[in-house]
Amino acid sequence: MKEYRVKVEVKLKPVVLDPQGKTVLNALHNLGYDQVSDTRIGKLIELKLTNSNEENVIEQVKEMCSKLLANPVIEDFSIKVE
Amino acid sequence: MKEYRVKVEVKLKPVVLDPQGKTVLNALHNLGYDQVSDTRIGKLIELKLTNSNEENVIEQVKEMCSKLLANPVIEDFSIKVE
Repeated sequence: MKEYRVKVEVKLKPVVLDPQGKTVLNALHNLGYDQVSDTRIGKLIELKLTNSNEENVIEQVKEMCSKLLANPVIEDFSIKVE
Repeated sequence: MKEYRVKVEVKLKPVVLDPQGKTVLNALHNLGYDQVSDTRIGKLIELKLTNSNEENVIEQVKEMCSKLLANPVIEDFSIKVE
Protein backbone atom coordinates (compact mmCIF):
# COMPACT_ATOMS: atom_id res chain seq x y z
CA MET A 1 0.00 0.00 0.00
CA LYS A 2 1.28 3.42 -0.95
CA GLU A 3 0.11 6.91 -0.06
CA TYR A 4 -1.21 9.02 -2.94
CA ARG A 5 -2.15 12.68 -3.15
CA VAL A 6 -5.04 13.31 -5.47
CA LYS A 7 -6.30 16.63 -6.77
CA VAL A 8 -9.92 16.77 -7.93
CA GLU A 9 -11.17 19.75 -9.90
CA VAL A 10 -14.95 20.14 -9.85
CA LYS A 11 -16.35 22.67 -12.30
CA LEU A 12 -19.84 23.61 -13.35
CA LYS A 13 -20.65 22.30 -16.83
CA PRO A 14 -20.19 25.00 -19.49
CA VAL A 15 -23.95 25.16 -20.15
CA VAL A 16 -24.75 25.83 -16.49
CA LEU A 17 -25.01 29.45 -15.33
CA ASP A 18 -22.50 30.46 -12.65
CA PRO A 19 -23.95 33.30 -10.54
CA GLN A 20 -20.97 33.24 -8.17
CA GLY A 21 -18.60 33.70 -11.09
CA LYS A 22 -20.77 36.49 -12.46
CA THR A 23 -20.62 38.30 -9.10
CA VAL A 24 -16.84 38.02 -9.00
CA LEU A 25 -16.69 39.29 -12.59
CA ASN A 26 -18.76 42.35 -11.64
CA ALA A 27 -16.55 42.98 -8.61
CA LEU A 28 -13.44 42.79 -10.82
CA HIS A 29 -14.99 45.28 -13.24
CA ASN A 30 -15.80 47.60 -10.32
CA LEU A 31 -12.14 47.44 -9.30
CA GLY A 32 -11.18 48.55 -12.81
CA TYR A 33 -10.17 45.20 -14.34
CA ASP A 34 -12.20 45.64 -17.51
CA GLN A 35 -9.99 43.27 -19.48
CA VAL A 36 -11.57 40.28 -17.73
CA SER A 37 -14.38 38.91 -19.88
CA ASP A 38 -15.38 35.75 -18.02
CA THR A 39 -15.01 34.21 -14.57
CA ARG A 40 -16.09 30.79 -13.40
CA ILE A 41 -15.69 29.38 -9.92
CA GLY A 42 -15.14 25.73 -9.15
CA LYS A 43 -13.98 23.57 -6.28
CA LEU A 44 -10.57 22.09 -5.69
CA ILE A 45 -10.52 19.01 -3.50
CA GLU A 46 -7.24 17.55 -2.30
CA LEU A 47 -7.30 14.02 -0.95
CA LYS A 48 -4.64 11.95 0.74
CA LEU A 49 -5.32 8.22 0.51
CA THR A 50 -3.59 4.86 0.53
CA ASN A 51 -4.13 2.24 -2.14
CA SER A 52 -2.21 -0.47 -3.95
CA ASN A 53 -1.76 1.27 -7.30
CA GLU A 54 -2.60 4.39 -9.27
CA GLU A 55 -5.27 2.73 -11.39
CA ASN A 56 -7.24 1.72 -8.31
CA VAL A 57 -6.85 5.22 -6.88
CA ILE A 58 -8.39 6.82 -9.95
CA GLU A 59 -11.18 4.23 -10.00
CA GLN A 60 -11.98 4.86 -6.35
CA VAL A 61 -11.83 8.66 -6.54
CA LYS A 62 -14.15 8.58 -9.58
CA GLU A 63 -16.62 6.65 -7.44
CA MET A 64 -16.28 9.20 -4.59
CA CYS A 65 -16.92 12.01 -7.05
CA SER A 66 -20.15 10.56 -8.40
CA LYS A 67 -21.36 9.63 -4.90
CA LEU A 68 -20.36 12.69 -2.89
CA LEU A 69 -17.82 15.18 -4.20
CA ALA A 70 -19.54 16.34 -7.38
CA ASN A 71 -23.07 16.65 -8.65
CA PRO A 72 -22.90 14.83 -12.02
CA VAL A 73 -26.06 16.58 -13.24
CA ILE A 74 -24.48 20.03 -13.28
CA GLU A 75 -20.77 19.47 -12.63
CA ASP A 76 -17.79 17.93 -14.40
CA PHE A 77 -14.77 16.66 -12.54
CA SER A 78 -11.18 15.83 -13.39
CA ILE A 79 -8.77 13.76 -11.32
CA LYS A 80 -5.02 14.17 -11.09
CA VAL A 81 -2.82 11.81 -9.10
CA GLU A 82 0.41 13.36 -7.79
CA MET B 1 -3.76 42.17 -27.31
CA LYS B 2 -4.29 38.46 -26.92
CA GLU B 3 -6.86 36.47 -24.99
CA TYR B 4 -5.55 34.36 -22.12
CA ARG B 5 -7.20 31.75 -19.95
CA VAL B 6 -5.92 31.77 -16.42
CA LYS B 7 -6.51 29.20 -13.71
CA VAL B 8 -6.15 30.36 -10.11
CA GLU B 9 -6.01 27.82 -7.30
CA VAL B 10 -6.84 29.27 -3.90
CA LYS B 11 -6.11 27.00 -0.94
CA LEU B 12 -6.18 27.47 2.79
CA LYS B 13 -2.68 27.71 4.25
CA PRO B 14 -1.53 24.38 5.70
CA VAL B 15 -1.62 25.75 9.27
CA VAL B 16 -5.26 26.83 8.94
CA LEU B 17 -7.98 24.39 10.02
CA ASP B 18 -10.39 23.33 7.26
CA PRO B 19 -13.78 22.42 8.78
CA GLN B 20 -15.35 21.89 5.33
CA GLY B 21 -12.61 19.42 4.43
CA LYS B 22 -13.07 17.66 7.77
CA THR B 23 -16.80 17.30 7.09
CA VAL B 24 -16.15 15.82 3.66
CA LEU B 25 -13.59 13.45 5.21
CA ASN B 26 -16.16 12.25 7.74
CA ALA B 27 -18.73 11.78 4.99
CA LEU B 28 -16.22 9.73 2.95
CA HIS B 29 -15.52 7.56 6.01
CA ASN B 30 -19.26 7.07 6.53
CA LEU B 31 -19.48 5.87 2.91
CA GLY B 32 -16.78 3.28 3.67
CA TYR B 33 -13.74 5.02 2.16
CA ASP B 34 -11.52 4.50 5.20
CA GLN B 35 -8.32 4.73 3.12
CA VAL B 36 -8.73 8.51 2.86
CA SER B 37 -6.67 10.18 5.58
CA ASP B 38 -6.99 13.86 4.72
CA THR B 39 -9.23 16.15 2.66
CA ARG B 40 -8.83 19.85 2.03
CA ILE B 41 -11.15 22.03 -0.02
CA GLY B 42 -10.05 25.03 -2.02
CA LYS B 43 -11.37 27.25 -4.77
CA LEU B 44 -10.67 27.08 -8.45
CA ILE B 45 -11.14 30.33 -10.33
CA GLU B 46 -11.00 30.42 -14.12
CA LEU B 47 -10.56 33.79 -15.76
CA LYS B 48 -10.65 34.84 -19.39
CA LEU B 49 -8.84 38.12 -20.01
CA THR B 50 -7.03 40.06 -22.68
CA ASN B 51 -3.58 41.54 -22.21
CA SER B 52 -0.45 42.24 -24.22
CA ASN B 53 1.75 39.47 -22.84
CA GLU B 54 1.89 36.60 -20.33
CA GLU B 55 4.07 38.47 -17.84
CA ASN B 56 1.53 41.27 -17.55
CA VAL B 57 -1.26 38.73 -17.17
CA ILE B 58 0.44 37.08 -14.20
CA GLU B 59 1.23 40.46 -12.65
CA GLN B 60 -2.37 41.57 -13.00
CA VAL B 61 -3.94 38.35 -11.74
CA LYS B 62 -1.63 38.43 -8.70
CA GLU B 63 -3.01 41.88 -7.94
CA MET B 64 -6.61 40.65 -8.35
CA CYS B 65 -5.86 37.77 -5.96
CA SER B 66 -4.53 39.99 -3.19
CA LYS B 67 -7.35 42.52 -3.65
CA LEU B 68 -10.35 40.26 -4.15
CA LEU B 69 -9.95 36.61 -5.06
CA ALA B 70 -7.99 35.35 -2.06
CA ASN B 71 -7.59 36.28 1.58
CA PRO B 72 -3.79 36.50 1.95
CA VAL B 73 -4.03 36.13 5.74
CA ILE B 74 -5.33 32.56 5.59
CA GLU B 75 -5.04 31.53 1.93
CA ASP B 76 -2.30 30.81 -0.59
CA PHE B 77 -2.86 31.09 -4.31
CA SER B 78 -1.16 29.82 -7.45
CA ILE B 79 -1.63 31.12 -10.98
CA LYS B 80 -1.41 29.11 -14.19
CA VAL B 81 -1.72 30.72 -17.63
CA GLU B 82 -3.06 28.39 -20.33
